[in-house]
Amino acid sequence: MSETINAAYYRRNKSFVVETAPSPLPEDDEIAIRIAYCGICGTDMHIYHGNMDARVGESRIIGHEMSGVVEAIGANVEGVSLGQQVVVRPLDHCGDCPACDAGHTHICHKLKFLGIDTDGAMQEIWVVPAHTVHTLPDDMRLDHAALIEPVAVACHDVRLSELQSGEDVVVIGGGPIGVLVAMVARDAGGNVVISEVNPNRLAIAQKMGFDTVNPAEVDLAATINERTGGKGADVVFEVSGSQPGVDAMTTVAATRGRIVMVAIHAQKPTVDMFQFFWRELKLIGVRVYEPVDYEKAISIIASGGVDAETFITDVAPLDDIQTAFEALDRSPTAMKSLIKVGKDV
Amino acid sequence: MSETINAAYYRRNKSFVVETAPSPLPEDDEIAIRIAYCGICGTDMHIYHGNMDARVGESRIIGHEMSGVVEAIGANVEGVSLGQQVVVRPLDHCGDCPACDAGHTHICHKLKFLGIDTDGAMQEIWVVPAHTVHTLPDDMRLDHAALIEPVAVACHDVRLSELQSGEDVVVIGGGPIGVLVAMVARDAGGNVVISEVNPNRLAIAQKMGFDTVNPAEVDLAATINERTGGKGADVVFEVSGSQPGVDAMTTVAATRGRIVMVAIHAQKPTVDMFQFFWRELKLIGVRVYEPVDYEKAISIIASGGVDAETFITDVAPLDDIQTAFEALDRSPTAMKSLIKVGKDV
Ligand SMILES: [Zn+2]
Ligand SMILES: [Zn+2]
Ligand SMILES: [Zn+2]
Ligand SMILES: [Zn+2]
Repeated sequence: MSETINAAYYRRNKSFVVETAPSPLPEDDEIAIRIAYCGICGTDMHIYHGNMDARVGESRIIGHEMSGVVEAIGANVEGVSLGQQVVVRPLDHCGDCPACDAGHTHICHKLKFLGIDTDGAMQEIWVVPAHTVHTLPDDMRLDHAALIEPVAVACHDVRLSELQSGEDVVVIGGGPIGVLVAMVARDAGGNVVISEVNPNRLAIAQKMGFDTVNPAEVDLAATINERTGGKGADVVFEVSGSQPGVDAMTTVAATRGRIVMVAIHAQKPTVDMFQFFWRELKLIGVRVYEPVDYEKAISIIASGGVDAETFITDVAPLDDIQTAFEALDRSPTAMKSLIKVGKDV
Repeated sequence: MSETINAAYYRRNKSFVVETAPSPLPEDDEIAIRIAYCGICGTDMHIYHGNMDARVGESRIIGHEMSGVVEAIGANVEGVSLGQQVVVRPLDHCGDCPACDAGHTHICHKLKFLGIDTDGAMQEIWVVPAHTVHTLPDDMRLDHAALIEPVAVACHDVRLSELQSGEDVVVIGGGPIGVLVAMVARDAGGNVVISEVNPNRLAIAQKMGFDTVNPAEVDLAATINERTGGKGADVVFEVSGSQPGVDAMTTVAATRGRIVMVAIHAQKPTVDMFQFFWRELKLIGVRVYEPVDYEKAISIIASGGVDAETFITDVAPLDDIQTAFEALDRSPTAMKSLIKVGKDV
């Protein structure tokens, strides 16, 4: 192990600097991971824009959509070996709140999100609690493995929707999360339609083999009714975070349809509550993931259920993190940008 | 069987007239019921106010919250006998729409509600499709049995909430439906609190043994948090149909809490969707009932799980239907008014 590592620090005002730091060592219940790749999340872009400065502080190493290999293992840790390929489920819970008491540790009331509330994976060696680590098949490509975290979000969303094979699915919003939800829903046997207004995103969704609707051009509800014999969609994922998306979710859902709230609505939208009553609709709030979702995401990446090659639209070295964020910020067509953190991993 | 019956006709402009009509006979798949009691539903009060004139027409016999005894049986009907005590589940479905195809016949897209879309139970003999009839224990009081329809609504709501014994429940809105939901939830082992602003309704709820909160006077969410060790309510029933009720439902719910949408929101309320995401809340739309809910309501009435004596606040003969509606309309304390339709039942 070298004595120093490279690390990228977010220093506010849309700026990152890459500096050397002492190489960290794991405590007894920790694992040190040599990072291979780290994807840039929508949340990271929020941080870059300064929207989370109070939360991340003045000099934070961000990043949580990572892959790597085990570099060092704490004294109390079992079940992993040096050199093994791993990813991190970046959630550290308190163990003592009502959510933890009820077993919902992934949405702990005092949840620490690694890479936001603590330093993250945009550094060559990242030390994390051992309970957050999932091991990977030896032959998995580590660039593809960097998609496991966002794919796990989609796996959680699809699992909680209780989607059955053959059911009709509408995904409202064709950005990176919407496309991953659509891929996982398709992998589960759903008949998926993506609703999206952005022509670039429509083109990407079509390239990935999805049927699409542009609700700015055609009547979405009428189109879905036509496709489903008047029934509507059994499962709807609202990923747009917009009022038109919330309006659409109740119009496209079948009687007893399940609507999954994936998006973060900072504003309170108006909701057609009468439709929830009249057609016994269900709304299911979903956030992050549980261990089972990580295992599912690993198996989907391993089986090629996600079109990783199309989804990864850029890869840049850690030294170029600043220009990678700038490029992603202005790109109309990007899906997922990866930072290649390690030189030799 | 006499050759004529008395029937109450709704003739618009808040007026009923009681007239004689030919005594009806059942077709092959029908049952004729001699009506004992018929409760006045909130929907009936909407009709009285003229809000549903287009739907009910110019001379409708309304009423669906009834009890009675079998008077005559169609040729194809099995499983009931003359004189048997019965109630009617007043839903007639089409059998051919997407909802019926999926087995959700109670919310059929072309549902006929007996007593609204067809003539109802405010007449001495009511003829109904045999599939709508549920038989009662011989010793059940028929005035109490007239509560089975609204209790079945509450049983449906509580069943779809998946309430477990020992869970914390908040019912938002302490009107007749809210109180019945509270009683059925209590019967299922829930720790129930009723939130209500009307002092008369608060007094009735307290008389029925419920803990109550007046959110106009104290902080509802703080009170529920205090009662539940900071957890919040596992199950919330929104029965108020108001924007403050919709605001409250997300603040009192526990992480992963289930919010049941019982109320009819004619206006689209604003909803704190962020909370659905952040705490993985679930919203469950509920409407009317299924056969299993009727059977549950019958057993709850039979076991005394509903305080029928306190809940029935008025009983008037059919000849006085006009004054009964007028009195109920202006009463601040009434819960359920029954019409005693039959003289000798
Ligand atoms: Zn992420
Ligand atoms: Zn916790
Ligand atoms: Zn009713
Ligand atoms: Zn139907």
